Amino acid sequence: MMNKETINREIVNRKTMMNESTMTTEELAKYIGEIVHIHGSIYKIRKMKGFSFVLLRTGREVVQCVAEQGIELPLEESCVEMEAEVVSEERSKLGFELHIQAIRVLSSPAAPSPIVINQKLVEASLENQLDFRPITLRNQKQRAIFKLQEGICRGFREFLYNHSFTEIHTPKLVKEGAEGGANIFGLNYFGQQAYLAQSPQFYKQMMVGVFERVFEIGPVFRAEKHDTSRHLNEYTSVDFEMGYIQSFEEIMKMEEEMLKYTFTFLQEHYRQELEILQIALPVIQSIPSISFREAKRKISKAYNRPIKDWEDFEPEEERLLYELFVKETGSEFVFVTHYPSAKRPFYAMDSEGNGGNGTSEAGQVEKLGSVTESFDLLFRGLEITTGGQRIHEYGKQLAKMKARNMNPEQFESYLMMHKHGMPPHGGLGLGLERFTCKLLGYENVRYTTLFPRDINRLVP
Amino acid sequence: MMNKETINREIVNRKTMMNESTMTTEELAKYIGEIVHIHGSIYKIRKMKGFSFVLLRTGREVVQCVAEQGIELPLEESCVEMEAEVVSEERSKLGFELHIQAIRVLSSPAAPSPIVINQKLVEASLENQLDFRPITLRNQKQRAIFKLQEGICRGFREFLYNHSFTEIHTPKLVKEGAEGGANIFGLNYFGQQAYLAQSPQFYKQMMVGVFERVFEIGPVFRAEKHDTSRHLNEYTSVDFEMGYIQSFEEIMKMEEEMLKYTFTFLQEHYRQELEILQIALPVIQSIPSISFREAKRKISKAYNRPIKDWEDFEPEEERLLYELFVKETGSEFVFVTHYPSAKRPFYAMDSEGNGGNGTSEAGQVEKLGSVTESFDLLFRGLEITTGGQRIHEYGKQLAKMKARNMNPEQFESYLMMHKHGMPPHGGLGLGLERFTCKLLGYENVRYTTLFPRDINRLVP
Repeated sequence: MMNKETINREIVNRKTMMNESTMTTEELAKYIGEIVHIHGSIYKIRKMKGFSFVLLRTGREVVQCVAEQGIELPLEESCVEMEAEVVSEERSKLGFELHIQAIRVLSSPAAPSPIVINQKLVEASLENQLDFRPITLRNQKQRAIFKLQEGICRGFREFLYNHSFTEIHTPKLVKEGAEGGANIFGLNYFGQQAYLAQSPQFYKQMMVGVFERVFEIGPVFRAEKHDTSRHLNEYTSVDFEMGYIQSFEEIMKMEEEMLKYTFTFLQEHYRQELEILQIALPVIQSIPSISFREAKRKISKAYNRPIKDWEDFEPEEERLLYELFVKETGSEFVFVTHYPSAKRPFYAMDSEGNGGNGTSEAGQVEKLGSVTESFDLLFRGLEITTGGQRIHEYGKQLAKMKARNMNPEQFESYLMMHKHGMPPHGGLGLGLERFTCKLLGYENVRYTTLFPRDINRLVP
Repeated sequence: MMNKETINREIVNRKTMMNESTMTTEELAKYIGEIVHIHGSIYKIRKMKGFSFVLLRTGREVVQCVAEQGIELPLEESCVEMEAEVVSEERSKLGFELHIQAIRVLSSPAAPSPIVINQKLVEASLENQLDFRPITLRNQKQRAIFKLQEGICRGFREFLYNHSFTEIHTPKLVKEGAEGGANIFGLNYFGQQAYLAQSPQFYKQMMVGVFERVFEIGPVFRAEKHDTSRHLNEYTSVDFEMGYIQSFEEIMKMEEEMLKYTFTFLQEHYRQELEILQIALPVIQSIPSISFREAKRKISKAYNRPIKDWEDFEPEEERLLYELFVKETGSEFVFVTHYPSAKRPFYAMDSEGNGGNGTSEAGQVEKLGSVTESFDLLFRGLEITTGGQRIHEYGKQLAKMKARNMNPEQFESYLMMHKHGMPPHGGLGLGLERFTCKLLGYENVRYTTLFPRDINRLVP
């Protein structure tokens, strides 16, 4: 083994201290014929006749290195510094490989990995993978999911900054839940009852009165007891809210533009992860839209299914709607609008007119309740966004709360904004993990959640 | 009042639907002599002889408008659309003003503001301001604080992306606290005891094993019962963690560069907020550093104060240290290094050698405990960052936990990373609200917290 001091300082000094540990393959390619000094983990060793292939895992890459016989190789998952020559090699995917001159071990694992992480896929049940998450995330494909997820957030943020949205940080410890219902975690806050925010809804609306357009990307908490492939008890919500809208369709338009922008952004800056994950991003022309009740009728007709529930979709119906729209329009996204008031929160703006009629399973005509200026966005058959226009007038908000037997006094600080002037406004919340899940074609949202929280899981 | 249809569509159509509500003063200045269509809130009306000044609050600006007698003016805090001529006006700060042609009221407040928000400052106690936060944030100066805070986050993020850090989202619902102690909120998680994360410490370390360099900007929760000007029970923590370091000083260097970058970023992109807040950003040449015990002795000597406690600073000492360093070096930042092990968490790496000796208040020589490879950053006398190198070797981490009578079995998923190979690494956490507070010269961190949470406050 070589002493660290013998490292070729001339080459090393070309890179600043700051970047030394994270040279990209593109940077490395500039040093063909030269010696570089590089850090990383020993991802995989493949012994050949007279030499070994050593895969070095750096911050974003896995680089193929060659070690001649005689170079003592450390264990897999050791952290090392190495001195190596960059050698042009056509057979290598990158067009070069590193010929190791010397390795210095910075740290060694105390035990071999309990689960094989250096194959293409981690071959283990999802539960098993999650149990060993701190280790399994070191797999090249698994970490690419979360690098790409970073890119999604960056794309969203860049788009929103460009459209004059202000980023905010709102409290997660709250006195009242925004979404209502029992799906809320409670805790003792210095003797007071507090809750974990189910969404930044109240706060982002208040902030529309301040900045007109705001957004937040942060955790939200839902105490839902569902144990399904699409529910999490804590997830990352991308929320935006905008004032001075003429209709909720402007919010849909904004989301459509945000998605287009982000796909372009990923194509530009996260190409290597898209390749590792073998993902072709969907192309958005214009996202089609259909009203909730029309959608109900359309599915019923196309698949000869009676409509059991005029107020909600079954998950199967969302999937069928996707099938229909892909066939008819080619779009994997579809906006569903005008959800029934009964299923939307108290701050949702009702549409004008009554709800019209529906035909029950038994063939009877029923009078349907009113609908809201709202929408969901379905992506590949899964709801990834809920949004809509909010009530901005004080009197109307009070009236709707009273009609729902809510006590406005409990919402004094929320209603303060309505009382003292709010523009027409609306917004949406998008579940980051669900969106990533559908984008990457996984069947369970836990695959695209860094450290999932569900009814059975609180660690790691 | 003018019908909306009469609005000059030719001009209006120059701007896209998306940006219409958020035209900046710079954009407006391009339309001198023309008619524009603009949205906003009526911030303030000043009646003059024969006309009125109307201040229109848009997403980021307050624009002076002039309304001739005869134009019916809505209440303050009404939300309006207006058609107005952009008129060159030297006496106006912006070099122009808007001559209102027509106003359409989109919504009116139900009651006048309970607190005067349209003066330079909101003249009310801090408590009072916070009670009416959804309204008081509409004040031009107050909202500039949070626009600037957005800029700080953007600057940090941009810097970190440029230095190959990956952004992560880690869970806030956890089974074990990272910082130890009683300052942790507990809750019932489907029958299990869970806690709210005091920091993303465990998770960001795990992710160093995956991406080498990671960061997160998100909420953290501290159940501290302190009621002081610098404590919050929920705050926004800027955390980064980096692998392959040779010493904790690389982390300090990274923070120094991040701060420099961010100040330049603010100067470029948030000039108008810096002006409203009348802030001159500090100039960082190179941040001086001093060891904790040296600092103790230095303060003791300079101010003739006996050293009562060799393990911690009193807040007054932090202030005095600031005074000394400003005088000697001109720097408003100072790094304090090598904090005593006794006051640092179990994952902090100890420095080599024993702790040396100190002299007690009574003049007796005492043997001091060991110190850690750690630092705090003090800014204008307040701790804004805690950081340091972490133990990366499994055996050493186990030993330190046992020496502290901790049960390693409770930390199985945390120790998994050490067991299966981790590079030397370290990182820091910076309190966003504290940093903003000191940067803007406020005396209480609640001024720079959007919706503060303290022992007495859970609303709004």
